[in-house]
Amino acid sequence: MKANVQIPKGTRDFSSDIMFRRNYIFNKVKACFERYGYAPIETPAMENIETLTGKYGEEGDRLIFKVLNSGDFLSKSKITENTNSKSLSKEISSKALRYDLTVPFARFVATNNNNISFPFKRYQMQNVWRADRPQRGRYREFYQCDADVIGSKSLLNEIELIQLSDDIFSDLNISNIEILINNRKILSAMIELMGASNLFDKFVIVLDKIDKIGFENVKSELVKIGVKKEKIDILNSFLNVKDINQLPKILQDSKIGNDGFKELSYIFNRIEKIGLKNSSLKFDISLARGLNYYTGSIFEVKSLDVNIGSIAGGGRYDDLTSIFGLNDVSGVGISFGIDRIFLVMDELKLFPNDIDVSTRVLFLNFGEIESDYCLSLVKKLRDNNINTELYPASDKIKKQMTYANNKEVEFVVIVGEDEMNSGKLSVKNMKTGDQKNMSMSDLINLIK
Amino acid sequence: MKANVQIPKGTRDFSSDIMFRRNYIFNKVKACFERYGYAPIETPAMENIETLTGKYGEEGDRLIFKVLNSGDFLSKSKITENTNSKSLSKEISSKALRYDLTVPFARFVATNNNNISFPFKRYQMQNVWRADRPQRGRYREFYQCDADVIGSKSLLNEIELIQLSDDIFSDLNISNIEILINNRKILSAMIELMGASNLFDKFVIVLDKIDKIGFENVKSELVKIGVKKEKIDILNSFLNVKDINQLPKILQDSKIGNDGFKELSYIFNRIEKIGLKNSSLKFDISLARGLNYYTGSIFEVKSLDVNIGSIAGGGRYDDLTSIFGLNDVSGVGISFGIDRIFLVMDELKLFPNDIDVSTRVLFLNFGEIESDYCLSLVKKLRDNNINTELYPASDKIKKQMTYANNKEVEFVVIVGEDEMNSGKLSVKNMKTGDQKNMSMSDLINLIK
Repeated sequence: MKANVQIPKGTRDFSSDIMFRRNYIFNKVKACFERYGYAPIETPAMENIETLTGKYGEEGDRLIFKVLNSGDFLSKSKITENTNSKSLSKEISSKALRYDLTVPFARFVATNNNNISFPFKRYQMQNVWRADRPQRGRYREFYQCDADVIGSKSLLNEIELIQLSDDIFSDLNISNIEILINNRKILSAMIELMGASNLFDKFVIVLDKIDKIGFENVKSELVKIGVKKEKIDILNSFLNVKDINQLPKILQDSKIGNDGFKELSYIFNRIEKIGLKNSSLKFDISLARGLNYYTGSIFEVKSLDVNIGSIAGGGRYDDLTSIFGLNDVSGVGISFGIDRIFLVMDELKLFPNDIDVSTRVLFLNFGEIESDYCLSLVKKLRDNNINTELYPASDKIKKQMTYANNKEVEFVVIVGEDEMNSGKLSVKNMKTGDQKNMSMSDLINLIK
Repeated sequence: MKANVQIPKGTRDFSSDIMFRRNYIFNKVKACFERYGYAPIETPAMENIETLTGKYGEEGDRLIFKVLNSGDFLSKSKITENTNSKSLSKEISSKALRYDLTVPFARFVATNNNNISFPFKRYQMQNVWRADRPQRGRYREFYQCDADVIGSKSLLNEIELIQLSDDIFSDLNISNIEILINNRKILSAMIELMGASNLFDKFVIVLDKIDKIGFENVKSELVKIGVKKEKIDILNSFLNVKDINQLPKILQDSKIGNDGFKELSYIFNRIEKIGLKNSSLKFDISLARGLNYYTGSIFEVKSLDVNIGSIAGGGRYDDLTSIFGLNDVSGVGISFGIDRIFLVMDELKLFPNDIDVSTRVLFLNFGEIESDYCLSLVKKLRDNNINTELYPASDKIKKQMTYANNKEVEFVVIVGEDEMNSGKLSVKNMKTGDQKNMSMSDLINLIK
């Protein structure tokens, strides 16, 4: 491949066979969102930079793609010896590509507040961009499919999102799904009990790595950031919780902790009663979710059959819109990572065979007189809603048939002198190899 | 509206009612593309900057949105007093947002050449970004829906694209469509006859404005850029062509001009025979299309009922992929401007009334016991593929009913103590106002 036809690192071209499978996922997810009463919105790819910064933690901020101001962007800047990337970036870039769909959604709600009736249930399926180091299942441009309810504190929303997730993966035929749940309030209580409230942000970053580096390493890293050694046992007792009803005892009389427990317990009780199809719901104190804005329930969804990290995740944010001037509007949402779901389905061979939408009938081209004759026949099939092509040039028949095979065409129609004289078509069934003469209406009936 | 919730100039939020109508257009266009045998692909929003620059003319290059390199982008730059926007931009920005779908498509074909069998018919429906001055029907982020055939010189492709355009607007119920057609070869011949070949680029920019500024102003502007006064009559004779068969005479013995005429004539003859549904095909010598890469047929589509400029346009490019190292691959394509088509349909009130996909059944919420009871009923309706919601909190009934009205819900289900005791539901038909008691299976049958 030559240098000048490469695409930026971490981005991808999608060929048709991939597109058909991606669209299969999109359509299932979309149908499920709508079945639960979520309505679609879209926001711009670019947001003003201050809309995005400060919402994703320091690391997140670094990964935001900034867009250079148009025109003579330096005209108002004074460049000196001391100019550095950070100071200059503010002067020459006022827009950035969205990093997720949650913050733009909160901004949308604040912007369009007057036209929204709450509770507001929306879904949004759009690309996001992150200047992350690319690896398997992690791209610099990827789709998120989000469902959020905003303007309602009710835990019924959390329950609904868990059911929604279960339904989506069940509709996609992905079994063995684990929905991990935690609550930021319980996490706060635990960290408070460990005397490390002032270390909250660093604490959860370390805790988040427990799957990768193991408990012993988490322990020593926590001590390194300043957690007292004698308090580590508290973390251990939380990690050993097998049943959420053990929580009140170890939460002691922490008010915030018991609030979190009540929420968790409400959710678990209902989910147990309603039942899930393909998923199990599991409490996991080590689930922290890196994003700054979560305040209550947090969840993450994993496939137990494919080791690729989370394929969905979300949580409750009590106060995200207040940054945009709209107070007291609590929301909760979940985001489905289509690209990882694709990898899971691909690895488990879960895509149906017949999802390619392709040409059903190809008319071969034997020259100008014949192709002129075919034009109106092709039109007639299309008017009957049958995907049809006329091969555009009188190339060798072998080449035309290869084209038909590559496109997995069902019927090839041959119109030469004989057929033009008789008014019949010679139709070859590409699956069986049978070739028959028939009229146009026969062909239409055969296909419909 | 506060400053911090604004979105960048020329970009838009799309609320659900707009989304439903946009999706209506997308689905019609997509179905038509597939009926003609085009298969979907997608390319990244960002391309390497050299992939895009130099393809859209000087003006186009200026309108490309550039993306700032990540991290310490200045670390390798030496900033001096002489640093200006142009020189710095090359050092700090190596990626840009796509400006159209044609150039990324040509790049895609070169990149994925080994996996493509030609002729290759693809469609692509994605956003593009241009730092243009926003006005009615012109945005900085907008959708293009493109169909292209690449790897075939046959004029049957041009004919197909004209039919495709006719079918799309006919499927959308937009009548009174004019498809303007010209050929770059005829344009070249005319400009050659006027002794202005060296002024080609400037010439077509002036000519392109004839609709806005009129013939007299075009005339004087042409003279200003260097066209000889005594040659202006030649332009006049081309503008007066009513029937393309007058062309050979005024083209005299220009080889390239007569090549162009033959192409035009081939297309007109076939289209006349096949017929168009809602469109008329019209030769227009003033149609130039600003983009550098066109070499043969060019077309533009307009609604005669709404004055908003072109709603689709395209043409043949003989050599676009050669910039990417792939020679001798001619292509032709057409791009549909969804945002303008939306405005046309909106103005002509062509959107059907029933395109909102919304919640059909809402369960009111009378408190914890009742909502717990409803959870499994709601699940049952959803499992029967009926879009259903449970109102998430036991708010005042008036508020819940307002919510139902806003969402244009068809049925409201009331489950209080009586209903829980009897096992029946009280169902209110929101259109008729009728309220009836029924079982779950009655309700499912009623709706399905």
